[in-house]
Amino acid sequence: MGKTRVAIVGASGYSGEELLRLLLVHPDVELTCITSRKNAGKTAGEVFPRYMECKIPFTMPDVDDIAAKADYAFLALPHGLASEFAEPLLERGVKVIDISADFRLRDKEIYTEYYNVTHPAPGLLKEAVYGQPELYRKQIAKARLVACAGCYPTSILLPASPLLRDGLVENTGIEAICLSGVTGAGRKVAAPYIFPECNESVKPYGVVGHRHLPEIEQELAVVAGVPKIVMNFIPHLIPVNRGIHSCVLMYAKNGVDAAVVLKCLHNAYDSERFVRVLDGGQLADTKHVTMTNMCEIGCAYDARTNRIILSSAIDNLTKGASGQAIQNMNIMAGFPETAGLL
Amino acid sequence: MGKTRVAIVGASGYSGEELLRLLLVHPDVELTCITSRKNAGKTAGEVFPRYMECKIPFTMPDVDDIAAKADYAFLALPHGLASEFAEPLLERGVKVIDISADFRLRDKEIYTEYYNVTHPAPGLLKEAVYGQPELYRKQIAKARLVACAGCYPTSILLPASPLLRDGLVENTGIEAICLSGVTGAGRKVAAPYIFPECNESVKPYGVVGHRHLPEIEQELAVVAGVPKIVMNFIPHLIPVNRGIHSCVLMYAKNGVDAAVVLKCLHNAYDSERFVRVLDGGQLADTKHVTMTNMCEIGCAYDARTNRIILSSAIDNLTKGASGQAIQNMNIMAGFPETAGLL
Amino acid sequence: MGKTRVAIVGASGYSGEELLRLLLVHPDVELTCITSRKNAGKTAGEVFPRYMECKIPFTMPDVDDIAAKADYAFLALPHGLASEFAEPLLERGVKVIDISADFRLRDKEIYTEYYNVTHPAPGLLKEAVYGQPELYRKQIAKARLVACAGCYPTSILLPASPLLRDGLVENTGIEAICLSGVTGAGRKVAAPYIFPECNESVKPYGVVGHRHLPEIEQELAVVAGVPKIVMNFIPHLIPVNRGIHSCVLMYAKNGVDAAVVLKCLHNAYDSERFVRVLDGGQLADTKHVTMTNMCEIGCAYDARTNRIILSSAIDNLTKGASGQAIQNMNIMAGFPETAGLL
Amino acid sequence: MGKTRVAIVGASGYSGEELLRLLLVHPDVELTCITSRKNAGKTAGEVFPRYMECKIPFTMPDVDDIAAKADYAFLALPHGLASEFAEPLLERGVKVIDISADFRLRDKEIYTEYYNVTHPAPGLLKEAVYGQPELYRKQIAKARLVACAGCYPTSILLPASPLLRDGLVENTGIEAICLSGVTGAGRKVAAPYIFPECNESVKPYGVVGHRHLPEIEQELAVVAGVPKIVMNFIPHLIPVNRGIHSCVLMYAKNGVDAAVVLKCLHNAYDSERFVRVLDGGQLADTKHVTMTNMCEIGCAYDARTNRIILSSAIDNLTKGASGQAIQNMNIMAGFPETAGLL
Repeated sequence: MGKTRVAIVGASGYSGEELLRLLLVHPDVELTCITSRKNAGKTAGEVFPRYMECKIPFTMPDVDDIAAKADYAFLALPHGLASEFAEPLLERGVKVIDISADFRLRDKEIYTEYYNVTHPAPGLLKEAVYGQPELYRKQIAKARLVACAGCYPTSILLPASPLLRDGLVENTGIEAICLSGVTGAGRKVAAPYIFPECNESVKPYGVVGHRHLPEIEQELAVVAGVPKIVMNFIPHLIPVNRGIHSCVLMYAKNGVDAAVVLKCLHNAYDSERFVRVLDGGQLADTKHVTMTNMCEIGCAYDARTNRIILSSAIDNLTKGASGQAIQNMNIMAGFPETAGLL
Repeated sequence: MGKTRVAIVGASGYSGEELLRLLLVHPDVELTCITSRKNAGKTAGEVFPRYMECKIPFTMPDVDDIAAKADYAFLALPHGLASEFAEPLLERGVKVIDISADFRLRDKEIYTEYYNVTHPAPGLLKEAVYGQPELYRKQIAKARLVACAGCYPTSILLPASPLLRDGLVENTGIEAICLSGVTGAGRKVAAPYIFPECNESVKPYGVVGHRHLPEIEQELAVVAGVPKIVMNFIPHLIPVNRGIHSCVLMYAKNGVDAAVVLKCLHNAYDSERFVRVLDGGQLADTKHVTMTNMCEIGCAYDARTNRIILSSAIDNLTKGASGQAIQNMNIMAGFPETAGLL
Repeated sequence: MGKTRVAIVGASGYSGEELLRLLLVHPDVELTCITSRKNAGKTAGEVFPRYMECKIPFTMPDVDDIAAKADYAFLALPHGLASEFAEPLLERGVKVIDISADFRLRDKEIYTEYYNVTHPAPGLLKEAVYGQPELYRKQIAKARLVACAGCYPTSILLPASPLLRDGLVENTGIEAICLSGVTGAGRKVAAPYIFPECNESVKPYGVVGHRHLPEIEQELAVVAGVPKIVMNFIPHLIPVNRGIHSCVLMYAKNGVDAAVVLKCLHNAYDSERFVRVLDGGQLADTKHVTMTNMCEIGCAYDARTNRIILSSAIDNLTKGASGQAIQNMNIMAGFPETAGLL
Repeated sequence: MGKTRVAIVGASGYSGEELLRLLLVHPDVELTCITSRKNAGKTAGEVFPRYMECKIPFTMPDVDDIAAKADYAFLALPHGLASEFAEPLLERGVKVIDISADFRLRDKEIYTEYYNVTHPAPGLLKEAVYGQPELYRKQIAKARLVACAGCYPTSILLPASPLLRDGLVENTGIEAICLSGVTGAGRKVAAPYIFPECNESVKPYGVVGHRHLPEIEQELAVVAGVPKIVMNFIPHLIPVNRGIHSCVLMYAKNGVDAAVVLKCLHNAYDSERFVRVLDGGQLADTKHVTMTNMCEIGCAYDARTNRIILSSAIDNLTKGASGQAIQNMNIMAGFPETAGLL
């Protein structure tokens, strides 16, 4: 039996390139189509010397062409543009794994509020499954359209969800402080991202109203079983290529301390291959997870302030984007969940 | 009339080297004595090629020798050791500017709790003035012994103090999230600090019970006019040489928003030469202050959570240590406060 | 039939950790033994959070124990110590792949001259095969003891050998200028290697008499078919974690230009899976090869000076050490040469 | 008597910003005019938060306006554009210190060959003085137009010139291998210069026919007293903000060794404030010179190959551009040569 055929729509950015890195050695799929307006006509190997051996040609993105070549399409496109491809691809029977933000928010009004555009395909919002396998594995298995969780949201949801679900912490007073490497901004050629401006520099940005905020609040409310969570999200840009570290601060309920939290995390994740719980007061470090699909989680408890302090690390391009997208595809297609990811 | 004679006791570490950098070109002082057990016998220029032109010899630290050569002594020594020098130097008429943590805490019991040793010179705690010029300028002017504010505390006290003093924010629910470059650990030769371990890595540490915490709480309580403040302090290590960025989150009192906070910060700092308030929602960036004695402060207000978010940046070795130490000396000696620091 | 059993002797350094990374997912081997004096008693996962899932225990290095557990032993030990293990392991029937420098030099006098010690096992020098698969594949296939090529030598031999072998360049006036990331120094805890000393710094070192020089000269002389080559080797330390870039300058013989050189390189390497030749005047970049076993080679010709300029990039820990060691084992054991390396 | 009035024409790039940093605290000048097409209308402080205290407004570049305000004009403009300003400014009595490449080459044909344009002001080439103070101090003192030496050329000429002038080395077989930080590319917003592309990467570029090559060859020929020198120049881009390190390899004449070279370098530079000669086989390190106007020089001799190996380090923006430009102005204006540069 042949391998499952997959396409990467928008394969020139960092997420697209990371999909390429992983899918080229995935045992169960054949990469049949990669698109790029900018690079159409060249091969992947010509554009990325790292994959020089790869002779797959970039083509102009065309839904009929993609549908003819692929069973699954990864969309590594800017928000807005992704949903323009999702709808016709689904109509042509292609399953879609979207890395953009287009189908993550269940409420199209909130989408408009944070992204400043009318949602281009609101009819699909109901069907789309949020692509965080540790939270939605069963739904992902049956989905036609998966909206992969964002990088910051992944780094926050994985440590925080078990505590909220088990009722160990308050729903209010949550703060997430996150540090992201520069690939988190995509392959963006703009003055703030040139090397001398980022190197030897650290700064917060988007501390009020960042686009990932409603996504985080939405999903935390779901696991907490409450209508709404309101929290602070404070992202920073730091001079590393890959990696996000998040500290999530939450108020402990009565009787909850570090040991209780650890037990909760172990319960949630000891059977998960891509989440690792650190014992003994250790905190997460991005260098332990770069180039892997792992999320590393540590925790501490400050009795003076009654704060649980969760520390998590992921690679923003792997578990925070393309690795998790492949994990989602593996679930959808019935492959081993770790296929191509170890 | 001759220049004021100054000594650096412990001139081999990063703070000592930064004092050297600044004092060698200070117009009002003559650097007459630099001590180092490790480097005694060599000149400063032999140890630091950057200052090869400097022929001042390192000597073994000896209080009589220092007192014979200097009117002011900067102590750039480990805590514990610093107070062993402070007492005899003061007895010999030398004014002391201590960069260590030995005289920052007013309560010797808290010192013991956080530093695990009995305070070696508790009799001086009452006399020591906390060396944050923007808060204690008048007392510094009359002091014999100044305990320079720590690097993290400086980065938190400068943005937070005016708001607490003016009663714009609550005393509870304060969180300080800080990111420090690796020189913040001193010239420490240990496995976690070698280049491949720090580069492409980011991680929090000491999130419960860091030694700078009681110092921060003590001084915030003083400006707030309350007996005690209890807060969270979450430091991270990031791969830059110099620089600390701090985000301080505080709950706004009724009617307080970004405009009110900005006005308060401008009132406090428009006449200060080493604090810069950013307008228009800009946040601080360490690269704007490295190698300077400036503290840059920005702010934002999140109406959804009622949180004031302060953002500050300093160079940990300059405003966070040696530059501020010289600013203190300038005040003590009646020099222009900016002498040697622009 | 069971998998081939392998041991890593000295698994705590960067080369040992890289062997661990690669061997844990190698399809044809089972990692049965990892030794470390420092970490004996802990598991690999406890020492390296990145491999937390790995429960293999570190043991004290003992030849009988290793021989009982493994068919192949990788020695990731300091020079001098490696040969103390090689001899008894070979006697016990274990095949040895040595990453140290102990068996690379065919002349024990030169070893003494450059390493300042008498060779501990000179009787094995004749038998040892130099572990550069692209040059010695046939001999490696039959070897009991392989002396893996050094990192700098690999980065120089791969681009330079085909030209010397084909007689396109002179044997004199060769210059190799190399830049290495800091892992090249091993996990060395010493003042020059702490982050603030390496970051934002670049410097040459060992420009006369570096220990890799005789190894490079020895092997270039072999491919050139001459008794001796004398050249310059100028290494630099640069602030990256992984990667070596080498420029090799050689004088072109009559009629040789960039096109002739490119043809020669393609002839030599188009059938090699781990060497990539760049066309069109492109030069190598370490970022194209990090975390891979590839060597990337580009070239240029300066007609004004008659200089061929070769540019090569490898990952010093992979193709420069542990990846190549595994490539050697694959050849020795009859596995596909790329097993575990793609 | 008033201070000398100076203008920076093109103050938005890295060289312009470095001029701003240095001129704002220069004791003998008043900065009266800064131009920028892009930033006209804003103050320097608005554009560069680091200099927020500076209220000088950016204006559109206009020769009459500049001539009305300034006695000296620094041109920090792209080549080609610089000479369009130089001519009318000189006519209006303004002395010009040009940081571009426009007046460095004495032969307009070579300018055309390397820069692909006809020289816009060939009539000034004869008058322009090459702005390397250690080589042309007397001529600079009398000049109206100084063409500041390029960054790479400065890092090569300073170590190599004394040896060629004293006849210690051959004129042939010279190789200069140089490593530059990313600010060397200017504030260039282009894909190869974004952080993730430069970080953890090192590569050579322009190894044949780089634009700085004819400038280096021209000046080395002058000091050697020969009509022509032909050499190799191999620049690399490395992930640091500031700094150039150069290795210059030359063949020693009979009887010349490291001691002879050191003596020659000391003779040349012991009276120079901005050149430092390292003894005892030490090699230069960029971290010793960043943010200073120093050039640090070390040397070694390889008797096996008869090669003198010079190692030099400068800050590309200071001694390699703006600091040296100010040193030139100091000489032209009769100020102490070190004014504003210590």
